[in-house]
Amino acid sequence: MQALGRQILVEFYDCDTEILKDEQAIRTAMIEACLIGKATVVTDTFHSFSPFGVSGVVVIAESHVAIHTWPEYGFAAVDIFTCGETIAPWDLFHHLNKALGCKHHSNMELKRGLFDTGDEPLRHKSEEAI
Amino acid sequence: MQALGRQILVEFYDCDTEILKDEQAIRTAMIEACLIGKATVVTDTFHSFSPFGVSGVVVIAESHVAIHTWPEYGFAAVDIFTCGETIAPWDLFHHLNKALGCKHHSNMELKRGLFDTGDEPLRHKSEEAI
Repeated sequence: MQALGRQILVEFYDCDTEILKDEQAIRTAMIEACLIGKATVVTDTFHSFSPFGVSGVVVIAESHVAIHTWPEYGFAAVDIFTCGETIAPWDLFHHLNKALGCKHHSNMELKRGLFDTGDEPLRHKSEEAI
Repeated sequence: MQALGRQILVEFYDCDTEILKDEQAIRTAMIEACLIGKATVVTDTFHSFSPFGVSGVVVIAESHVAIHTWPEYGFAAVDIFTCGETIAPWDLFHHLNKALGCKHHSNMELKRGLFDTGDEPLRHKSEEAI
């Protein structure tokens, strides 16, 4: 079975609550992480909630990276959805882990878009787009 | 254990390839799905890839909904990440399933942000934001 994409789901616990409240700091960390992970940033959108909490998504040529923060619980949920062979999603993860001041985390990696192509590789749109 | 969020991961196979290529149709379907699912749309961003394929994310007060389409495989990957009790993520799913002309799909539902609070419910930022 060949997969079109891979997705890393991360639960960041015991993060720096001040960073989790700071939309600009979160956006900077996310963009930097994408660059470190060799993703091609297409566009991004971030939003602060009242009284606190930030949601943001960076659309990358290789899919997307999303974050939701709950400062009141010191928690952030991150999804790193990628396709193609050029991106390094775990480098992206490591940068976010450090930038959020996370003390512990749990991760899961999934394959998305499974097709039975035998030995034939699946082409990725990101390779066509760049 | 109480969860801050829930996430539905959907693999839409054998979709209408013309719809999967159509950024405006995808965006309309996503926004409509959010409204049907009682989500509060905050912002959205969609992008078409060359030669085809659409990526898009709708940031909602309750987290986000993301889509990536591979028209060449008739495939779309969708994530529906929500928090709070007011949203109906499966209604959102049903609308997308119909709008994409999907013939078969597979789904997974995850709990995100688990905390051991005993019987105490976890408050959600979306309830504070609205």
